[in-house]
Amino acid sequence: MSSQFAPSRPGTPPEHLKSPVTQSVLRIQNQIVQAARELLLEQGFVELLPPIIGPVTDPGGRGAKQVDIDFYGNRYKLMTSAILYKQASLLAFDKIFYVAPNVRLEPLETADTGRHLAEFHQFDVEIAGASQQDAMRVAQDIVTAAVARVVRTMGSELEILGRDPDAFAPLLNKTGAFEQISHTDAMEDLVRLGHEQNHDAEIDWEGEGILSHKSDSPFFIIDYPKGSRGFYDREDPERPEVLRNFDLIAPEGYGELISGSEREYDYARIIARMRETGENPAKYEWYLKMVRDGIPSSSGFGIGIERLTRYVAGLDSVWKATAFPKIPGVVSP
Amino acid sequence: MSSQFAPSRPGTPPEHLKSPVTQSVLRIQNQIVQAARELLLEQGFVELLPPIIGPVTDPGGRGAKQVDIDFYGNRYKLMTSAILYKQASLLAFDKIFYVAPNVRLEPLETADTGRHLAEFHQFDVEIAGASQQDAMRVAQDIVTAAVARVVRTMGSELEILGRDPDAFAPLLNKTGAFEQISHTDAMEDLVRLGHEQNHDAEIDWEGEGILSHKSDSPFFIIDYPKGSRGFYDREDPERPEVLRNFDLIAPEGYGELISGSEREYDYARIIARMRETGENPAKYEWYLKMVRDGIPSSSGFGIGIERLTRYVAGLDSVWKATAFPKIPGVVSP
Repeated sequence: MSSQFAPSRPGTPPEHLKSPVTQSVLRIQNQIVQAARELLLEQGFVELLPPIIGPVTDPGGRGAKQVDIDFYGNRYKLMTSAILYKQASLLAFDKIFYVAPNVRLEPLETADTGRHLAEFHQFDVEIAGASQQDAMRVAQDIVTAAVARVVRTMGSELEILGRDPDAFAPLLNKTGAFEQISHTDAMEDLVRLGHEQNHDAEIDWEGEGILSHKSDSPFFIIDYPKGSRGFYDREDPERPEVLRNFDLIAPEGYGELISGSEREYDYARIIARMRETGENPAKYEWYLKMVRDGIPSSSGFGIGIERLTRYVAGLDSVWKATAFPKIPGVVSP
Repeated sequence: MSSQFAPSRPGTPPEHLKSPVTQSVLRIQNQIVQAARELLLEQGFVELLPPIIGPVTDPGGRGAKQVDIDFYGNRYKLMTSAILYKQASLLAFDKIFYVAPNVRLEPLETADTGRHLAEFHQFDVEIAGASQQDAMRVAQDIVTAAVARVVRTMGSELEILGRDPDAFAPLLNKTGAFEQISHTDAMEDLVRLGHEQNHDAEIDWEGEGILSHKSDSPFFIIDYPKGSRGFYDREDPERPEVLRNFDLIAPEGYGELISGSEREYDYARIIARMRETGENPAKYEWYLKMVRDGIPSSSGFGIGIERLTRYVAGLDSVWKATAFPKIPGVVSP
């Protein structure tokens, strides 16, 4: 990747859509999504059509704003993430996934980071009874299957993009699990490398970039501190303040591809976590009613499809990984 | 189907999702979508991820309201249909499809028709250079492949639903094209059957129901009059006032499954049609700019996935064909 920052902007829709770069990228993206889908369908997952509006949505999202809509006089939200619906879906099937569009009004200053879109898509997976490690294994299998398929079938597209398929050799030759590093250890690494930041927060973009650049293969950061995530990431019962969650970080500076976690499913703990994170339980009426009746324990994750495409295709900016880029603050189709 | 009208309502999310009926329906839906997808991917279509917000959306939709959102101070819409984006996508690939969520705030009086949802999904297809008849052939192939796959793989689910697979024998034994009836002839049929309505409009629900009940296999109504559809349905150059479009109507009273058309692609004619249909061209800036630069001729269609599921699964109400039903005017997850 040429640079961490990519201030270029898409041309007009015809310029963008007629470009051999865009066409190669979208063909690669189609293969990535199909590889992920086929792997999960073979394992007995059921694909459900995603909800995109509802009375409430995931409150997470580093500083992004939710979009309000008027649903017959009631204030609804556009989904920023369908996590609450994924937990509900496990009442029907033990293993589910969605390909889900999401809208997050990211701060204007993210317009040129190369990794933020106001509209994007997640490959959204949830598995009843699964642990943090179980979910990480599925996430690894999906990324590996997607990369393998692109390398196998999209040689000429990778060539058009100038993406060397050898970049994926360390990933494809891996026989065991992807490397795992705890959030605490990642922080210590960053201090050693001269990058200091708040220990109770997400790792900041710059820190994530440093760790990503150091690696030649995707790796997990696990066990984030409680202050950094929403109420639905489960706290470790043996290690209070530590969440049983994970991010998958791409190598070469591409940064975060996937966020996932064991989910909180106990009514009282969810209420407590909501209060800790400043969420008003009254807003979550249907969800809390359902949780009180009982939902399964689970783990799940969301893959940023445009971000995974960006890494696989070797793009400087994530907007190149979508047919109709919505850059924060920029009016476009 | 027991009744044209189905005033029943979904229970709580746990009641709905734990029901063997819902689970059977969603498994069938998963097979329908996969059958359609596999058929198109084999034919060289590229699947794109759908946009769900934009400065403008399809103005069609019998009396349904669009949803406004605030996109960084700009008034955007939720997609009621992605037709304009499908035309744009043909600048990248000759044959494309989306699985696209749509939101339409249907009038409150549609809450109990059994066939309206405020949030639904379309299997959205567009083909460069294709005629009305070409698109109808693809639509027929998709419906046939979906039904065949469900009958082949979902025997026990159909049994749980009390849906007799023999209902599909006339469809599956068909060797040629589905029957086609012109809008004019359909109107005359309805007059003979004692059902009179405005000739320049869509066929009303009751009329569509009468024709649907008469048939044992899906059939097309073609060549709707100009007043009945949006500016993007192409007018027949040889027969002014007649559109080169079609609906696919399910048998047994299930009604419309698919709407499609040859598309208008000429700048001057689009402007004229916008003015005729009361649309302000200034709203469509990006689209008209693109059209002026040149877009391919095309035909395409949208399959209502919940409606097709309703027909295949033999459901009285379309809300049974979705995990999180949004009934017009009803607050629910």
